[in-house]
Amino acid sequence: MSAVSAPAPDDRPDPAVWRVADGPLVASTGQGPLAHVRLAVKDLFAVAGQRVGAGNPAWLAEARPKTAHADAVRRLLDAGAELTGIAQTDELAFSLAGTNPHYGTPANPAAPGRITGGSSSGPAAAVARGWADLGLATDTAGSIRVPASYCGLYGWRPTHGATPDGGLLALAPSFDTAGLLAHDPVLLRTAAEALLTPGDTTAPITRCMVDEELVSLAAPEVRASFEAACRALTLRTALPLAPARTGAAEHLEEWFAAFRTVQAAEAWERHGAWITRHPGALAPDVAARFENGRRVSAAERARAEQVLSDARKALDAVLPPGTALLLPATSGPAPLADAPPEEVEAVRAATLRLTCLASLAGLPAVVAPLLRVRSLPVGLCALGARGTDRALLDFVTDSRNPAHA
Amino acid sequence: MSAVSAPAPDDRPDPAVWRVADGPLVASTGQGPLAHVRLAVKDLFAVAGQRVGAGNPAWLAEARPKTAHADAVRRLLDAGAELTGIAQTDELAFSLAGTNPHYGTPANPAAPGRITGGSSSGPAAAVARGWADLGLATDTAGSIRVPASYCGLYGWRPTHGATPDGGLLALAPSFDTAGLLAHDPVLLRTAAEALLTPGDTTAPITRCMVDEELVSLAAPEVRASFEAACRALTLRTALPLAPARTGAAEHLEEWFAAFRTVQAAEAWERHGAWITRHPGALAPDVAARFENGRRVSAAERARAEQVLSDARKALDAVLPPGTALLLPATSGPAPLADAPPEEVEAVRAATLRLTCLASLAGLPAVVAPLLRVRSLPVGLCALGARGTDRALLDFVTDSRNPAHA
Repeated sequence: MSAVSAPAPDDRPDPAVWRVADGPLVASTGQGPLAHVRLAVKDLFAVAGQRVGAGNPAWLAEARPKTAHADAVRRLLDAGAELTGIAQTDELAFSLAGTNPHYGTPANPAAPGRITGGSSSGPAAAVARGWADLGLATDTAGSIRVPASYCGLYGWRPTHGATPDGGLLALAPSFDTAGLLAHDPVLLRTAAEALLTPGDTTAPITRCMVDEELVSLAAPEVRASFEAACRALTLRTALPLAPARTGAAEHLEEWFAAFRTVQAAEAWERHGAWITRHPGALAPDVAARFENGRRVSAAERARAEQVLSDARKALDAVLPPGTALLLPATSGPAPLADAPPEEVEAVRAATLRLTCLASLAGLPAVVAPLLRVRSLPVGLCALGARGTDRALLDFVTDSRNPAHA
Repeated sequence: MSAVSAPAPDDRPDPAVWRVADGPLVASTGQGPLAHVRLAVKDLFAVAGQRVGAGNPAWLAEARPKTAHADAVRRLLDAGAELTGIAQTDELAFSLAGTNPHYGTPANPAAPGRITGGSSSGPAAAVARGWADLGLATDTAGSIRVPASYCGLYGWRPTHGATPDGGLLALAPSFDTAGLLAHDPVLLRTAAEALLTPGDTTAPITRCMVDEELVSLAAPEVRASFEAACRALTLRTALPLAPARTGAAEHLEEWFAAFRTVQAAEAWERHGAWITRHPGALAPDVAARFENGRRVSAAERARAEQVLSDARKALDAVLPPGTALLLPATSGPAPLADAPPEEVEAVRAATLRLTCLASLAGLPAVVAPLLRVRSLPVGLCALGARGTDRALLDFVTDSRNPAHA
C-alpha cells in the first residue's frame, strides 16, 4: 500500500487526486443552476476528447478518446458546471480504500494521515480540499458513501436507475449508480435535480426510524455521536425517532453474502476477459475480488439472486415511501493510511455490512457529515424507499423546518 | 492551568461542564418552537431558585438564590425549552480559554486534548457533547464566537442591546451581549427569534465582502480553508465575493487598545469592590485583567471612548445594512490544553484582534463551523450592520438559495 500523499501545492495538480486537470476541460456556459460550479469527474465517466483510465495504467494505455460525454456529465455541464478535471478512482472501482498503487493515495484533508476511502477517492479528495465544488462519482457497494463519511462531505447514492448510466464504465450493473459528492448541501441538492429525471416531487419524509441492531454494527464510539446527531435531526424536522425492527440484522449475513456473490460475478462478466489478458495488471486485493467472481457457478448466482429478490421485498415492506432509516454511514472514521492490511480488511468488512443494504436493494441513500469520533468525521446516512430521492435529499440537506417556521 | 478533563460518563454531570445538572431544572411545557429543546444556561444568568456562580467558588458562596429567571432564560422557556442545567464559565467571564482552575477544563469533543475556548466553556462543551441542544451564553470580547469556532458549533453574538440583559451578571455593559450556541443552524435561528424583539424582518444580505488585510491576521493554514468556505458560501447564496477595504486593519491596534481600556475599566467598575474584598479569589491571569481596569484614569477612559465612537462610525460607513463581512472566527484552531501560558496568551491576542471589531462596534456576528485546519474545526464569522441580526442569521444558517430554487 502506498503511503498517503502530502497535499500538493496548489499550482500543480496532485496526481493522487487528478488524472487530468491541466486547466478546465470544459468551461462553464455561465448560465444555469450550476453556473461556475467546478466539477471533478471520476475516471469512469466518458469525457469527450479524453480517455477513461479507470484507475489503472494498463487500462488507460489501451483506451481510446471518447467522442461524447457520458449522459451524467452532459447534464451537469448543461446546468452550467465547469468540467475542472478527471479525478482518480480505485482500480475499476472495486475497492473502498482509495489506496491506488499506481497513482498514490490522496490525502484526506479532514483526517490527516488517513485514507479518503474509495473507490471515489479522487472526487472526494478534490472536493474536500476545495479544488472542486462537486464530484460526479459512482456507488456500487458504498463508493460514494464511504469517502463522504471519511472526508466529512455530503454524498448521494441515487435509487438504482434514477440517474443516467450512459457512457459510464460499469463494475456490477445491477448495483452501479451515478451520484454526487459535495461540501455544500444546497449544491448537492441542486446538482441532484440536474441528474434526476424531471418529475413530480415525491411526498416528504414523515417517518424517521432507527434499527438499534443495525446501529450496533458500528464502533461504540460512533454510536454516541450517532445518537446526538439523530436527536438534532429530529429536533430540526420535528419528526419523532421511531424504533424500527427492520429484520435486516437477522438476515444480514445471508443478504451480504448474496450481494457479494452477484457483484463479483457481474464484475467478472464485465472485466474478466480483460483481466485474463493482463495478468498482474491489478493490485492483488482487487484482483482477488474479481477472481472470486470467476469462481461463481451459475447455480450459486441464481440462488444469490433469489436471496436478493427476497431481501428487496423485505426492505420495501419495512421502508415505504415517506420513511427514512438512519444509520452510521461507516462503521468508524477513516483508517490510518499505514494501517496493516488485516485492519483495512476488517474495517472494510464492517463497513460493507452497513452500506450493502442500499446497494442490494437499489435504494437511495444520502450521507451528511454530522457525526464526529474524536476529531474525525463520520457520516450519518439516511436510507429511503426506491424512487424517493428528492424527498430524502430534502430531508437531509434542507434546513427549512416547517415546525420552526 | 488545569489539565483537560476526560469526558465524564453520561450518568453523572461533568463538573467541568455543569455547575448544576441534577435532573432538569425546569421541564418543557411541550409547546412552542423550542418544545423539548434541552437548554444549557451559562452561570451568569439568573435562574429562579438557583444562585449565580460566575465561575468562582467565592462568588457562589456569597450568592443568594434568585427569585426570578433572567429575561433571556424566561423567553427561551416560554418558547418551550427545557432548562437542563447551569453550565460553567470562565471566572466572571473575563477570559477566552475555558480553563477554570476551580472547576476544571471541559473536554472539547471536536478537538481532543484541546480547550473549548471561553468564557462560555460550559454551554459550548455541553452542546458539543450532545448533552444540550442549545446554549444560552454571553459574548463581550468573543466569548460565544471563540468556543463556537473551537468546538465546531454555530454561534450568534447579537447586536449590542438586541437581546434582553435583565438578570444577567455584567462584565462590561457597553459590550456585553446575551447570545446562543447550537450544533444545528435551524435551531440557532429559531431560538434567536425567541430572544429578538418581534419586529419587521430586515432586508436580506445582498453584498458579501472580504478584507484581505483582516484575513491575514489569521494563521496561514486557516486562510486556505477560509477561501474554500467563502467560495462555497458565494455559490450557495449566488452573491459575488467583493474585496473590501474597510480600513479596519490600519486602525486596528488603536481600536483594540481603546476597546481593552474601556472593557477593563467597566469590569473594574462592576466588580472591583468585590475583588478588593476577596484577595486571591481569582486566578492570576483574570485578576491581572481586572487590575488593569483599576489603573485606567478618567482621562484615558474618555480618550478611549472617543476612539471607539469614531471606530463605530467608520465601521457603520463601510458595513451598511445588507452587507456581510466574512472573517475567520479565530486566528487558528483550539490550542492544546497543556500549551504553555505564553502560547495561550499569544493565541488570545491574535484572536482578540479578529473578534474585537464586532465587540467594539456593537455589531452582530454569526459563526458557522465551515473551516477545518488539519482535522480541527475553525469557524467562519459573518459580521453585519447593527440591527440586521435576522438577515445575518438567515444568510449564514439558511440553506435556501433563491438562485438555486
